[in-house]
Amino acid sequence: MKAAVLGTGAVGDSIGTKLVQLGHPTKMGSRTATNEKAAAWVKKNGESASQGTFADAAAFGEIVFLCTKGEGTLEAVRGAGAANLKGKVVVDITNPLDFSHGMPPSLLLCNTTSLGEELQKALPDALVVKTLNTVNCEVMVNPRKTGGDPTMFMCGNSAEAKAKVRALLQEFGWKDILDVGDIKSSRGLEMVLPLWVQTYMATGNGYFGFKVLMPPPARP
Amino acid sequence: MKAAVLGTGAVGDSIGTKLVQLGHPTKMGSRTATNEKAAAWVKKNGESASQGTFADAAAFGEIVFLCTKGEGTLEAVRGAGAANLKGKVVVDITNPLDFSHGMPPSLLLCNTTSLGEELQKALPDALVVKTLNTVNCEVMVNPRKTGGDPTMFMCGNSAEAKAKVRALLQEFGWKDILDVGDIKSSRGLEMVLPLWVQTYMATGNGYFGFKVLMPPPARP
Repeated sequence: MKAAVLGTGAVGDSIGTKLVQLGHPTKMGSRTATNEKAAAWVKKNGESASQGTFADAAAFGEIVFLCTKGEGTLEAVRGAGAANLKGKVVVDITNPLDFSHGMPPSLLLCNTTSLGEELQKALPDALVVKTLNTVNCEVMVNPRKTGGDPTMFMCGNSAEAKAKVRALLQEFGWKDILDVGDIKSSRGLEMVLPLWVQTYMATGNGYFGFKVLMPPPARP
Repeated sequence: MKAAVLGTGAVGDSIGTKLVQLGHPTKMGSRTATNEKAAAWVKKNGESASQGTFADAAAFGEIVFLCTKGEGTLEAVRGAGAANLKGKVVVDITNPLDFSHGMPPSLLLCNTTSLGEELQKALPDALVVKTLNTVNCEVMVNPRKTGGDPTMFMCGNSAEAKAKVRALLQEFGWKDILDVGDIKSSRGLEMVLPLWVQTYMATGNGYFGFKVLMPPPARP
């Protein structure tokens, strides 16, 4: 399956590299078609990897991963163009973190909305699925790095889109995937970030995941 | 150790009962000295259990558990009286949940403050510790009900107070207790509630806990 990754930071690099390793031709998008970090990523990943603008990447991918900083997600999606994302699965990995007031970060929006919901509003013809935002980028593509099988939360309005994302998450190594509902549930997925940051600050270890420990009857 | 429980709902009942079972004389406080639910709790728990007003309970306890609905926590604390809480460990279990706009609930305050912080501001001479708010009341006093050993998060400004609370949590059965910093970290502990509610709604099972899965080097 052809994939797009919007964003050239550590998350885009990690997701893009894993997609190529799994055999999915992947185009990394950025503001410009000649972004240096994207070029370095292409060079590292061989002929299944390519780069372009946000619009080039969105047009290329059958599935599109949003991997920018949260403050830039909506702008990246505008650059990609709603027409290029129409009918496609858009996987939102981003977090609306605001570090401008120091640590711990606050969220740019939360509680009565979320970045996932704002994205779905901005892209009514796309199938937005929120997931992977609750772990660091190395754990995203290697959950066993936590020493176990943490829970990956996922939400979105389209059952079909979530089934596709679930299959990809399984390719990434995730065994415990929990669908927590429609895109409104992005609130919960994003609002866990302050606890993530506090856990990281308290332990100095970012390679962790949250596991839902639950007795039988097992979750559906 | 003499303990107080402010609140007569399921949380107050659960915590109060466990404290009595562990041998801690416990007074349950409410708006009135003759609350019927508190009376039923006293009757059920024998001579180590007693009831009174919020102020009676706060004066009695060497450690005070806040177990009201989040919307009533600050009022309960005003009823208890700052003088009765001076120098004492105040364990805040409450969540500022707002169900007035339907499900999932939003939070009455979050992101740039938290109920834990507001309590510490209202009680500058008390030692507020936020904990236990991330699981249901049966799991609070029996973490193995989750089928494992979930992580219990804890925060507060006083290391001495947190050591006392840690010891009590261990009496409750908690083995994996993570101190995530000062009272400002209440934000993270409270902001995880939307994900808690979504997980509950998705699975129909409330007897779960979040476990931090982390590789060595182990957390400090």
